[in-house]
Amino acid sequence: MYRSHSCGELRASHINTEVTLAGWVQKSRDKGFMIWVDLRDRYGITQLIFDEERTPKAMMEKAKSLGREFVIQVTGTVIERESKNDKMATGAIEVLVSELEILNKAKLPPFTIEGNTDGGEDIRMKYRYLDIRRNPVKDSLIFRHKVTMEVRKYLSNQEFIEIETPYLIKSTPEGARDFVVPSRMNEGQFYALPQSPQTFKQLLMVGGMDKYFQIVKCFRDEDLRADRQPEFTQIDCEMAFVEQEDILNIFEGLTRHLLKEINGIEIEKFPRMLFDDAMRLYGNDKPDIRFGMKFGELNEVTQHKDFGVFNNAELVVGIAVPGGNKYTRKEIDNLIKWVKRPQVGALGMIYCRVNEDGTFKSSVDKFYNQEDLAKWVEVTGAKPGDLVCVLSGETNKVRAQMSALRMEMAERLELRDPKVFAPLWVIDFPLLELDEETGHYHAMHHPFTSPKEDTPEGFIELARQLTGAKDKELRKKYRDNLNKLKANAYDLVLNGNEIGGGSIRIHDKKMQANMFKLLGFSEEEARAQFGFLMDAFEYGAPPHGGLAFGLDRLVAILGGQETIRDFIAFPKNNSGRDVMIDAPAFIDDEQLKELSLKLNIQK
Amino acid sequence: MYRSHSCGELRASHINTEVTLAGWVQKSRDKGFMIWVDLRDRYGITQLIFDEERTPKAMMEKAKSLGREFVIQVTGTVIERESKNDKMATGAIEVLVSELEILNKAKLPPFTIEGNTDGGEDIRMKYRYLDIRRNPVKDSLIFRHKVTMEVRKYLSNQEFIEIETPYLIKSTPEGARDFVVPSRMNEGQFYALPQSPQTFKQLLMVGGMDKYFQIVKCFRDEDLRADRQPEFTQIDCEMAFVEQEDILNIFEGLTRHLLKEINGIEIEKFPRMLFDDAMRLYGNDKPDIRFGMKFGELNEVTQHKDFGVFNNAELVVGIAVPGGNKYTRKEIDNLIKWVKRPQVGALGMIYCRVNEDGTFKSSVDKFYNQEDLAKWVEVTGAKPGDLVCVLSGETNKVRAQMSALRMEMAERLELRDPKVFAPLWVIDFPLLELDEETGHYHAMHHPFTSPKEDTPEGFIELARQLTGAKDKELRKKYRDNLNKLKANAYDLVLNGNEIGGGSIRIHDKKMQANMFKLLGFSEEEARAQFGFLMDAFEYGAPPHGGLAFGLDRLVAILGGQETIRDFIAFPKNNSGRDVMIDAPAFIDDEQLKELSLKLNIQK
Repeated sequence: MYRSHSCGELRASHINTEVTLAGWVQKSRDKGFMIWVDLRDRYGITQLIFDEERTPKAMMEKAKSLGREFVIQVTGTVIERESKNDKMATGAIEVLVSELEILNKAKLPPFTIEGNTDGGEDIRMKYRYLDIRRNPVKDSLIFRHKVTMEVRKYLSNQEFIEIETPYLIKSTPEGARDFVVPSRMNEGQFYALPQSPQTFKQLLMVGGMDKYFQIVKCFRDEDLRADRQPEFTQIDCEMAFVEQEDILNIFEGLTRHLLKEINGIEIEKFPRMLFDDAMRLYGNDKPDIRFGMKFGELNEVTQHKDFGVFNNAELVVGIAVPGGNKYTRKEIDNLIKWVKRPQVGALGMIYCRVNEDGTFKSSVDKFYNQEDLAKWVEVTGAKPGDLVCVLSGETNKVRAQMSALRMEMAERLELRDPKVFAPLWVIDFPLLELDEETGHYHAMHHPFTSPKEDTPEGFIELARQLTGAKDKELRKKYRDNLNKLKANAYDLVLNGNEIGGGSIRIHDKKMQANMFKLLGFSEEEARAQFGFLMDAFEYGAPPHGGLAFGLDRLVAILGGQETIRDFIAFPKNNSGRDVMIDAPAFIDDEQLKELSLKLNIQK
Repeated sequence: MYRSHSCGELRASHINTEVTLAGWVQKSRDKGFMIWVDLRDRYGITQLIFDEERTPKAMMEKAKSLGREFVIQVTGTVIERESKNDKMATGAIEVLVSELEILNKAKLPPFTIEGNTDGGEDIRMKYRYLDIRRNPVKDSLIFRHKVTMEVRKYLSNQEFIEIETPYLIKSTPEGARDFVVPSRMNEGQFYALPQSPQTFKQLLMVGGMDKYFQIVKCFRDEDLRADRQPEFTQIDCEMAFVEQEDILNIFEGLTRHLLKEINGIEIEKFPRMLFDDAMRLYGNDKPDIRFGMKFGELNEVTQHKDFGVFNNAELVVGIAVPGGNKYTRKEIDNLIKWVKRPQVGALGMIYCRVNEDGTFKSSVDKFYNQEDLAKWVEVTGAKPGDLVCVLSGETNKVRAQMSALRMEMAERLELRDPKVFAPLWVIDFPLLELDEETGHYHAMHHPFTSPKEDTPEGFIELARQLTGAKDKELRKKYRDNLNKLKANAYDLVLNGNEIGGGSIRIHDKKMQANMFKLLGFSEEEARAQFGFLMDAFEYGAPPHGGLAFGLDRLVAILGGQETIRDFIAFPKNNSGRDVMIDAPAFIDDEQLKELSLKLNIQK
């Protein structure tokens, strides 16, 4: 037995008990005649004491030799501490050591194992096993476990069944690129790693499982960036015999449960917003509604005033920055520079100061009088002391630019309170998305999503028109028509992050075939890739739908963090490498030869 | 809203309630003036009734058109059933239908959707979504969920943290062949899919996580057979600051919890058996101890009696088959044929009848008298009416043969009661295994397992001797010495199946390096493959150890089934194919070209 207690559990009530502890040397203070050692394990820190009067000389020497992160085992008596530490759970006691064993020595760690470490990201990733010893990372991993347990308990209590779906599957493109795995038993053929268990969970619904969930790894061979890992975890759910309302209720319940159990926050009812409204009011399909600065569309009140920039713009839109009137001319110029940065991409910014005395001062006073500006103020909801910022241009671009500006101002004004949780359902997403470059359209959610109106013939016709539209004006017209075609698709947004998304699926073979046709699949391609699913729909497929949460992000947001990395035990860096393990790596010659053989006998 | 109730919940107390149900048509009986339909969902079956008197004519017609597995929604009134069915949970009532909607039609299924289906394995795999609708498969998937939830609850309550380890890792050979995944972002390099999270969980222990578990998919690119899938699930556990005793206690606790919660069986204390004893008494490292027929070694009592076969044999071993004396000469001859089958491989079998009158009759009476045979009877523990069966030859082979015979007799005599659960710890496994063909030795568990005695120098020396031993006799001597070298390794056996196994690991860099040397790794190879782990051991690695359960088999055994297949939603067949989805499949030309490029710029 290595220990009788953990390093986090001894209290005043244990005084005079003999205990055995094991753990890591967090630090030691050597006053010559007396040595204190902070002994750490997962559960806490306990202070050990050695002193000349009570500790044998040899052990005193041994205690002096202890370096940071040495692994030791001690036996001793719990005694009352002279100077108590109220901030430590074990601060009332210390352990007077009678036996000391060094279980393993440690080299000096390359960074300090403390809450605020001196180690940069790279070195901490290389020595992730040391990074994990630090409280912020350790606590994040424990937090993630707590979240997943609560998810499992809640869904199990709601009669959901967790069912494992396979990882070695057939490649069924879902937007991103698949990782492929050569099969040794089936030469020249390849498995793919799933981007999600989408088709399998639909087959489970056809199989009558009714309520399915799975916390499952998914894989996308995409270029990585800060918060995107090549492998990520989803809370994947599907239900049969449900409408959108049922799904929203169940998963609102789950999210409410998590906010309550994990964060101690009770939220009665989650607001819902149409996708079109989210775009119009926030320029964004995942608005952070913890703060205002809603968009005000100013086209009507800015036209016909000889200001060509606005007259020619598809969209003129403003926001009221609270208290922004106090900005100096120089500060406003810097803001204009900020929106003109390539990452944002605006051509310029018009502004209007809302003075405390009820007058207005804009950068375009030449074109707009006080009465005109009063309308800007009314539309954007600005108050005395605010600054109205206005951008204009092509609708999609301007919305993205203004959304970036809104978030930037919220950041600067500290309006994004990490203690506030503002969930939001965004519903009625468009069914299709047009790639302006290629003229092709994609399913905005995925090709299994059902359209809101039951008119497959109608949208096929629309698709034909679109394919033919070379002319830019025509394209725009069709794009607008296309945008009106909505899907039974919904996202759950939390504090400006999409944490979940889903849809009611197509369960009719003919409609699914039409959808593939619309998305540009030939009948043969659709059959080859998704024949198994369409066949299944012929044997009694129930209406069904579902939702998937991105676990990594959900956990990070509930944990009040901006980045997901601390919540993943062994994250990869932005080139997809595990630097500690040195993966990926070259494979051995035998495996390489096998692979080459397989490739040679292709198709 | 598709339904107000499930098809499993209506009782007499619901009579006169209006309800809406949705589900599949299990079957219908059409008496012309009256139609009964059994409506099925995941939760049960409810009888619907349509009759000429109370049902409008058009609906009557629609009801007549319903085929098996049609998906329908009905609204109606719960009424008392005239002929109640005590065997059905809903047998007291039926629903008089007032509205009927066909949600989806169904083609006639290729096999009957019933407990005992007429469909063979192949057709059921091809239409797995229909197979899953059958109660035995559906219940198995629900059962698996129940087991995993209990595992998670138990381990969480014991302060274990479930931590996800990566699936895209570096190839670290662990006995079987790795599946490899080409990396697009790192040309010419490959990830491997993990055979187990072994090294990662050890790093988590170095990272101070103390108690880790994970229910996790593992991958082995091996040739498949009946109960071996290329991807399988493990309950993977690791603990720090533990000795073997701690691990055995914790996981005995988990197994006891499962047997109680899932099977309603309480088992006080699991017996423990040394590996050497298991081999000696059962010829097997995973003995089924639900029944006797322990081996009796007969070398001493059979020697020097002029029977050359026994005199020259390394091992002479017998078992007492209960009641076997009643077998006719022909039946015994058939048994001899059975042991001589190539799958068993014995050269012959000697037997001795134990008569009720206390006399013996053996097939070698020429060499052994009644007194001699009495000793056989004593050693094997045979009783009057039994049959002593004796095999002889090389120790390892004879043990395997006798073990096969013992299991065969248990099967024939129905001694393997599926309602009895007999767990057993097998401990003190050998550290190493000699490959007689190549003269190489392997780690019996894995190269991270610690030897029982702390003598790394000693076993390195042993290894040198072994490598030099060309001579067969010398090899045997060294093999015997090697077998004496034991590991801190243990298996948990349940009813003759290994359901879990683990070890106390090496946590000292030098010992780990020595172990790799012993296993034939050069220093460079060890460094290249496992340098990250040995480096970690230098930064304060705690003593640690763990255990992994094979979830698929555990679930099947707790569920009283011989095969794991029903407990896996989408199993692959013996050539690693998912026949329904048609995976693996050929990949597209673009992906193929990318792969080829990567291969060309190798090393």
